[in-house]
Parts: sequence; structure tokens; C-alpha cells
Amino acid sequence: MKGQLALCLDEYVPRIDAFLKELEFADPLGLRLATPLNEAMHYSVDAGGKRLRPILTIMAYRLLADDWQRALPVAAAYELVHTYSLIHDDLPAMDDDDLRRGRPTNHRVYGEAMAILAGDALLTEAFRLLADEVEADPGTVIKLVSGLSRAAGRDGMVGGQAIDILSQGESGQKKIDQQSELLEVLHRRKTGAMITGSLLAGVDLAQGDVSLRARLTEFGAVIGLAFQVADDILDEVGEEESLGKDIGSDRELGKLTFVSLFGLDQARQKLAELHRQAVLLLEPLGEKGLGLKALADYIVERDR
Amino acid sequence: MKGQLALCLDEYVPRIDAFLKELEFADPLGLRLATPLNEAMHYSVDAGGKRLRPILTIMAYRLLADDWQRALPVAAAYELVHTYSLIHDDLPAMDDDDLRRGRPTNHRVYGEAMAILAGDALLTEAFRLLADEVEADPGTVIKLVSGLSRAAGRDGMVGGQAIDILSQGESGQKKIDQQSELLEVLHRRKTGAMITGSLLAGVDLAQGDVSLRARLTEFGAVIGLAFQVADDILDEVGEEESLGKDIGSDRELGKLTFVSLFGLDQARQKLAELHRQAVLLLEPLGEKGLGLKALADYIVERDR
Repeated sequence: MKGQLALCLDEYVPRIDAFLKELEFADPLGLRLATPLNEAMHYSVDAGGKRLRPILTIMAYRLLADDWQRALPVAAAYELVHTYSLIHDDLPAMDDDDLRRGRPTNHRVYGEAMAILAGDALLTEAFRLLADEVEADPGTVIKLVSGLSRAAGRDGMVGGQAIDILSQGESGQKKIDQQSELLEVLHRRKTGAMITGSLLAGVDLAQGDVSLRARLTEFGAVIGLAFQVADDILDEVGEEESLGKDIGSDRELGKLTFVSLFGLDQARQKLAELHRQAVLLLEPLGEKGLGLKALADYIVERDR
Repeated sequence: MKGQLALCLDEYVPRIDAFLKELEFADPLGLRLATPLNEAMHYSVDAGGKRLRPILTIMAYRLLADDWQRALPVAAAYELVHTYSLIHDDLPAMDDDDLRRGRPTNHRVYGEAMAILAGDALLTEAFRLLADEVEADPGTVIKLVSGLSRAAGRDGMVGGQAIDILSQGESGQKKIDQQSELLEVLHRRKTGAMITGSLLAGVDLAQGDVSLRARLTEFGAVIGLAFQVADDILDEVGEEESLGKDIGSDRELGKLTFVSLFGLDQARQKLAELHRQAVLLLEPLGEKGLGLKALADYIVERDR
């Protein structure tokens, strides 16, 4: 299974990276003063990372069609939105992180004002990519714009981030089952919405039907949650070097996490159960689902 | 002419305000914790303000069609983007303003983290409005998404804001004509792009032709600049109470403005010249252009 994933990643990731690197954030007038914004945008976009969301878009697209490079602008739009969210999340007013992917965070290099603007510009640019650079009929493009705005917005990623901030410090006042519910809702939005959104974007671009949409919606919810449980475990036990960010920062912030709530052992059990569900959901897809299966395996086994 | 404008505003503004107020930022699951994000979004959207951009969209639409209420979701999208930009501009890392439209700024009420997220959510919501709530053929909707992303993004509003921040403190090192050019490029993006964008959105929704697009592109550039020159003059001489923000704050920040560069008298001359150009551009539109003409008059004469 690892081999399957490695093959996929070798095929997709260099193309995703290249597509992102070649995005022209540069000022068309060549105005010197605009360059730092362009630089700040590319600094975070080119920083690498797992490229999980674009890979999901491409894998979902490939369930139905072979010309996966057509999915690149859509995949890139999801990665731009994910990147902007990291830049804003790292700001002093939010998580106040100094390190991201092993490098100084955006605001540490370009200053807070430019980091806020770079994030704003990346979010806006994602919608420009969808409108201007996706080869598809207009109805499909609108579906993609709608899907991204819902995944990223008030009921999706940003809504989840708001719940995250608001729930800090509140956890002690609640019963465990309430906290558990809160934690799931939080992550279904904060991480899950964009993971599901990136899968559905691939399905929509390839004109997938309602039943595949429903299946991947469920699959996205499950691996999104698994991803977060794994993240919480890694924050507790991972190695700072391979993770590229401060270890134990969640605990320091007093954040509600799956580990703080259930302990390490139960968190690991939950992760295994989510993995089992994900694999079950893929079974009817047969051979074609092996890429997504390998990704689900990776989410459980990753060490960064 | 004042009468003409008053009539238009009496017709449009209450409907714009109502449309914005009724936007459901509320969490569909009724989750208590999400409410502050919803509140923070509406706090700034419902704060009123001039509604200049939505009025421009509606006026431009009305050059070609009568059923102007069809333009409301498009007009609202531009107002949401404008509102988010004010929230982010007011942040401590940016202009650090405490007052906006006579009320405490968003971050003063909801905290910096929530203000950043409310801005992010409003920007995202603007694209959802275009994708989900505009009644038009799909090709037109895509044109609107593309137009908004360009007006708001790295080569438009955000790009202008970046130049603004980067140019602070640099002005003393440049010759006057360089500074003047910088100032025009800055404002053509920071304010002009969204003003032109909101006009073109109205034209595009009403299926206007290339020549009307070109005319309103020029008109938008001229009144956008006029708006900024007027703003700089008001920042110098306006009354804090009617303006609803701190007076002289530009000067305190050492900002490059039309007043700091040319002095009050020449800035006023420039404003009059821009007004003359705007009126000339509208002449061929005859009676139909009177609404926009009244708006150009207002921009020159306003005291807040």
C-alpha cells in the first residue's frame, strides 16, 4: 500500500508544486513596491507541506477520468486557501506560532500587516483560479466556486477556527461527552470541510454522480477527523524536528484536543476505528479506490 | 442634482441595507459557539456607511435594465468585500484604528482573532453570494466571480493596501513626481479597483457591451481617485464627529496623501479637475447617466 501512495505522490506532487510555483502573483506593471506581497504569498505557498488537499482533488477526479492534469487549477485553489488559513492561524492574535513547516512563519519574515494581506490575497486568488483557469463548462465552474466558498467560509473552515478560539478555556466547564461533541463539530469544520470540499471538487469537475458525492462526503468527514486525531497525537509525542513546528504547543495553550480529552491510548483507538471506517467506505470502489486507501493509511501512520 | 441623488439613495439604500441585514451568517446547526463569528460579521456589515459600491453596481445596471433588484446579491458581494477590507485595515498590525463609522472597530469589540476571522469569512461569503444567489446565466456568473477576484486581489485592493503599507516612511526619499505617480497607482488599486469593479459588475450582469465597459472603467478610475483625494482633504479639515473616525490620523502616521504632497489648495484643484473629467465621461449617456453624475457630485461635495 505504501508503494501505491509513493507512486501517486511521485506523479502528482511535483506537478502540484510546479503549478503553484509558476502562479504569477507578480505585479503585471512590474511595480517594485508590490513585490513584497508577491514574495510573501509565494513564501508560504512554495514552502511545501503535504499537499493533502490538492492530492485529494486529483485522486477523486481520477476515480472518474484519466486526464488528471485538468484538475490542477482546482487542486491549487484548495491549496491556496489552505495556505492562507495557515498564515492567518499563525498570527500573534491567533496561535502565535514562530515555526511552520520548519521555517519561520510568514509574519515572522514579512511582518504582521503583510502576512494578513498575503493571506487575504491568496484566498482571493483561489477564486480567480477557479473562474479564470479551470477548463470546464460554466455550470461546473460555478459549482466549484460555491463548493470552495462553503468549505472555506463561515460554516466551514473559518467557522471551525472561530469555534476553536471561542472554546479555549471553556473546556473545563463541560462534561466529557459535551466536550467530545464540541471537538468533533470543531474539526468537522476546521479541517473536515476543506478535506471533503477538495474531494468533492474533483468529483464535480469529473461530473461524478450523487452517490459518489455522498460516499466521498462521508469518507472526507472520516479522514478529516482521523487527520486531526493524528495531529493531536503527534503534537503530544511527535519530534519537533520532523514535525517542523513547536511540540506540545496545544497543551501549553490549554487547547481541547482528542489527547487532552481521552488520553493517548483512547485517541489511538479512535484513530484506528476511523481508519477502519474509511477503508470500508472505499471498498465498493475496488481497484480505483486504492490511491485514496493508501492516503487513509498514510494519515494514520504519518509522523509529521 | 442633489435631488436626483437623494431619490436614488432613498430607493436603493434601504433595500441594500435590508438585503445585507437579512444575510444568514448564522450557523445552520444553531451551535452556540459559532454565534460570535456571525455577530462580528454583522456588526461591521450592518454598521451602515455610504454603501457606495453597491449603489454603483445598481446604478450601472440601471443604465441598461430596470429590474435593479436583481443586482442586489452582486451589489452586496462588493459591499461584503469592502467591509472585510475595513475590518482588516483597522487591525492593530495595520492602521490600528479604534473608531469606524462612529463606533468601536470590530477588533475593539470582538478581539483581534475574531476580527481577522470575520474579515476572512466575509470575503469568502462574497463569492458564495455570487455563485449561489445571482440569477443569471452561468457564463455571466463566472464573469462576476472573475471580476470580483481581480478587483479585490493582489492586483487590486489588497495589492494597493500592500503598496500603502510599504510606501509609508519612504516618501521623503522620492521626488514629487515619483511620489505623485506612486500615490495614483496606490489608490487606483486600493480604492479604484473595487469602485471600477462594482460598476463593471452592474454592466456585466445587464449584458452591457465593450464600449460601455470601457467608459465605466475610465469613469471608475476617475471617481475612485476623486474619492481618495476628497478623503485626504477630509482627513485634514473634516470634523471628527461627522466623519466618525479620528481626524488627522493620516498625518500622525506620516502617510503620503494628496494633501501632504500638494497642499490643500492644489488637492482641491485636482478634485475639481477629476470631477470635470467624470462629468464629461457621462455626457454621452444622457438622461440615464444622471444618477452617476449626482454621485460624482456627491463625492466632491461630501463632508464625511
